[in-house]
Amino acid sequence: MESKGLQPMDSEQLRENAHKMVDFIADYYKSIENFPVLSQVEPGYLRELLPDSAPNQPETLQNVLDDVQAKILPGVTHWQSPSYFAYYPSNSSVAGFLGEMLSAGINMVGFSWITSPAATELEMIVLDWLGKLLKLPEDFLSTGQGGGVIQGTASEAVLVVLLAARDRVLRKLGKNALEKLVVYASDQTHSALQKACQIGGIHPENCKLIKTDSSTNYALSPDLLSKAISDDISTGLVPFFLCATVGTTSSTAVDPLLSLGKIAKNNGIWFHVDAAYAGSACICPEYRCYIDGVEEADSFNMNAHKWFLTNFDCSALWVKWQFPPVENENWGGILLEFEVKDRNALIQSLSTNPEFLKNKASQANMVVDYKDWQIPLGRRFRSLKLWMVLRLYGLENLQCYIRNHINLAKYFEGLVAADSRFEGCKYCLSCQLAHLTWDKPLLGLVVLSMKCLLNPLEKMGNKWVVTPRIFSLVCFRLLPPNNNEDHGNNLNHDLLDAVNSTGKIFISHTVLSGKYILRFAVGAPLTEERHVTAAWKVLQDEASALLGRL
Amino acid sequence: MESKGLQPMDSEQLRENAHKMVDFIADYYKSIENFPVLSQVEPGYLRELLPDSAPNQPETLQNVLDDVQAKILPGVTHWQSPSYFAYYPSNSSVAGFLGEMLSAGINMVGFSWITSPAATELEMIVLDWLGKLLKLPEDFLSTGQGGGVIQGTASEAVLVVLLAARDRVLRKLGKNALEKLVVYASDQTHSALQKACQIGGIHPENCKLIKTDSSTNYALSPDLLSKAISDDISTGLVPFFLCATVGTTSSTAVDPLLSLGKIAKNNGIWFHVDAAYAGSACICPEYRCYIDGVEEADSFNMNAHKWFLTNFDCSALWVKWQFPPVENENWGGILLEFEVKDRNALIQSLSTNPEFLKNKASQANMVVDYKDWQIPLGRRFRSLKLWMVLRLYGLENLQCYIRNHINLAKYFEGLVAADSRFEGCKYCLSCQLAHLTWDKPLLGLVVLSMKCLLNPLEKMGNKWVVTPRIFSLVCFRLLPPNNNEDHGNNLNHDLLDAVNSTGKIFISHTVLSGKYILRFAVGAPLTEERHVTAAWKVLQDEASALLGRL
Repeated sequence: MESKGLQPMDSEQLRENAHKMVDFIADYYKSIENFPVLSQVEPGYLRELLPDSAPNQPETLQNVLDDVQAKILPGVTHWQSPSYFAYYPSNSSVAGFLGEMLSAGINMVGFSWITSPAATELEMIVLDWLGKLLKLPEDFLSTGQGGGVIQGTASEAVLVVLLAARDRVLRKLGKNALEKLVVYASDQTHSALQKACQIGGIHPENCKLIKTDSSTNYALSPDLLSKAISDDISTGLVPFFLCATVGTTSSTAVDPLLSLGKIAKNNGIWFHVDAAYAGSACICPEYRCYIDGVEEADSFNMNAHKWFLTNFDCSALWVKWQFPPVENENWGGILLEFEVKDRNALIQSLSTNPEFLKNKASQANMVVDYKDWQIPLGRRFRSLKLWMVLRLYGLENLQCYIRNHINLAKYFEGLVAADSRFEGCKYCLSCQLAHLTWDKPLLGLVVLSMKCLLNPLEKMGNKWVVTPRIFSLVCFRLLPPNNNEDHGNNLNHDLLDAVNSTGKIFISHTVLSGKYILRFAVGAPLTEERHVTAAWKVLQDEASALLGRL
Repeated sequence: MESKGLQPMDSEQLRENAHKMVDFIADYYKSIENFPVLSQVEPGYLRELLPDSAPNQPETLQNVLDDVQAKILPGVTHWQSPSYFAYYPSNSSVAGFLGEMLSAGINMVGFSWITSPAATELEMIVLDWLGKLLKLPEDFLSTGQGGGVIQGTASEAVLVVLLAARDRVLRKLGKNALEKLVVYASDQTHSALQKACQIGGIHPENCKLIKTDSSTNYALSPDLLSKAISDDISTGLVPFFLCATVGTTSSTAVDPLLSLGKIAKNNGIWFHVDAAYAGSACICPEYRCYIDGVEEADSFNMNAHKWFLTNFDCSALWVKWQFPPVENENWGGILLEFEVKDRNALIQSLSTNPEFLKNKASQANMVVDYKDWQIPLGRRFRSLKLWMVLRLYGLENLQCYIRNHINLAKYFEGLVAADSRFEGCKYCLSCQLAHLTWDKPLLGLVVLSMKCLLNPLEKMGNKWVVTPRIFSLVCFRLLPPNNNEDHGNNLNHDLLDAVNSTGKIFISHTVLSGKYILRFAVGAPLTEERHVTAAWKVLQDEASALLGRL
């Protein structure tokens, strides 16, 4: 490139311009509360603001930054705003941002070990670190028989293990058995599972989403699962994959891993655990119980890019290589024997070995080549940002971070409970005790045990009119006046629209047992109590206005 | 988080630390020539240098940067080094880096339009810009009937269109027809196609990789394709997908799009064009001819993250919605009629619509939701970096950038040709003329036409002992002494090892017609003539040493 404008990669031009960009981004965070949280632009707004084609001649960075300020930021929904309470969070952080910068700076493509040994090795090490913080069984660590890998998203995580499980069975039964393969999960499971089935050619009617209801707080019932499996085996189908969720997207329901895992094992089914959101909480001892039973799983996933201060994308997936037990299995009535070669089902399913990528280390089987653990070939140096998050914050700060959000959610829950126009989580006495003592782990556990003894969950469904808060998501709704449920859903839909249109906060919704429910997910890095208080005021004000108009 | 160490996202801490990181990265580029290009570490080197687990207490950024310098960078293979000539380039640039920073700074997750309208709309606009630079037919633009989308990699691009094509046929023939579906491509096609077939459940024997040889310079022969399709139809199989490549990974072979596209159209086959590497060159008028025929394609892909100054990842995919012609088709002997609903096959194949993501704009079909154009749900604001590359450099600079690399490759080719111990591209007289006049577009075209008239490609295979250089990749090899081909492959394998072990350059290899061939791919942003000269000296020196030991 001639001397016109920027050189492709001149270190001093990089320095000068990147310093400008740092200030732009720091200023953005400084002023982030001034923007509408949810962008209020109309569809197609940007085309009118930008030219039809790329320029022939270079423009200056200042030109572009001016456009970002004037034209792009108004169209941004500010996920990092302290008043962002929609979906689940997608954390940015100083450490995560620095890691992303460094990754973009080095800009290597780490598909094979040789293309940057540090990228592969740091990823293995850092996922071992995170696995240990989560107290994952040794089988999941690279120092044991398994190992971790960073995927882009939980969707890709569930897809790759579903493909591994599919191909492991098809190698036994022949590829025409595809039409017989059955996947199980609850109807609260993320839509990513259905998409994975669609991609992998699983017949849609064989993706069995077992109905849940408030009696289990929307968790998958082991009894219903067992029955579905037996029924399917009796009609000649082949159960092969079970996805359990810890912290569903709608309502943070927690599937009972231990019971489900045993059923999976007894039936030779690959057991995947999706803890995309709630996995982060499990670095706190008092929340680790929610993934008890993970030792029964073949694969486990949590998104460090959700609630763990690691900029998007960074979805951590661990697999055991030794699954299921190397024994004869009764699989859909067909006796299957898994052999040593089945230990690395993931790699068998996803590896390619073209001549142009062959190299000594890979050919000698001395190294991990992560290209064989994922859909794409190329991959960024994403472990840098997770490494920097773990080192620049440290475990204790990360635990405080999680607990702080959960406390803010509890605080919001209390605000909802105190306003009789709303319906939130209504606790029985022992639940209230558990609630109050939750942050004192030992006392909490005692009370929780009492609670379970006194009030088995199944019998309590009706007392939680919405669904209980477990982590940092509160589900609630505005009660329709005169208990007229005909208007309940529209009312809450209108309330959602009204609060989001203020630009002051952004929340989202779900539907549980036919009811339109509002979701308030605490988890943005800048959220403080005052933001929760202010959000509640917006909700109350808009509710008053709506009810006043009825 | 308490006051210990960094706050999760404090704007002033971000500013201070990110400025440090900018200097670290700028210093890296300043000193990049001092590192061995290919990392020389041994497998497992990093585990010995890092602790077993994450720290409880926070560490300082300086600690981490010291570790990056001392422990990570020695394990990095420096893709941005000016002496990197392996695989294909993966460009970093000032503009691309700034775009990546901004994307990481905003850190939104743009799965649906509403989650950041600017992200979706900028992506549509910028892919229209790039499509226009490539002179793609209007059908591929969002202002026409089609549109572009940024995928992570070319692997994902070919996967999503393969799935769209698969499901479009299966909707007609029933899902049990999967076993009959046939994919076509040359044996030079990137392994990503085979992986996509594996993922999509295409039976391996139905992924037909048609053999190529030097007689077509490793391009797919339309005659062989036609024959394969007829044979398959006659045995009851259903041809449904054809992937052509413009610039194969091994040798930059260019498949003849126009003839192949007509065959595809006549047989109702989805026609995908993979120009992952060479697509970038097509912004120069003199190289645009290599994608002539793209108007016959249903989808087209080029990687802006390869040779277009956009930091990894940024793979641009365009699809036509209106394909194939809405007429009756004779498809594997079965009459198929495509209807209006088949226009958006990609979205039909990949969309999900869970309650928790529903919103007014999406429900009203007023917007594009890119989640339905890709495998994952979440997605980064990648259009920012492509936008910044296009604006901060401008078309003319980008064309200079491409031409400069191609000229450097020509220069290297000349060096090889002048050393009789090596075998490179041996031109016939008219080819030499074409070669000499290539950078004078008009004259070049005249000579090229003469060449084609005088020496039809098919008859010339033997004159190019390796394969001709078209873009910025030179294929060559060291001739075995005394023409003893038994040693030829080992000799070149050893030469590759020897030059890469010096740490001075990094090149890679392929195998063509059974011969081990060295690949010299020019394309790193910092590469200048002096780096090519130095690389050639390394190759000559190591060759002399090797030959001297024989």
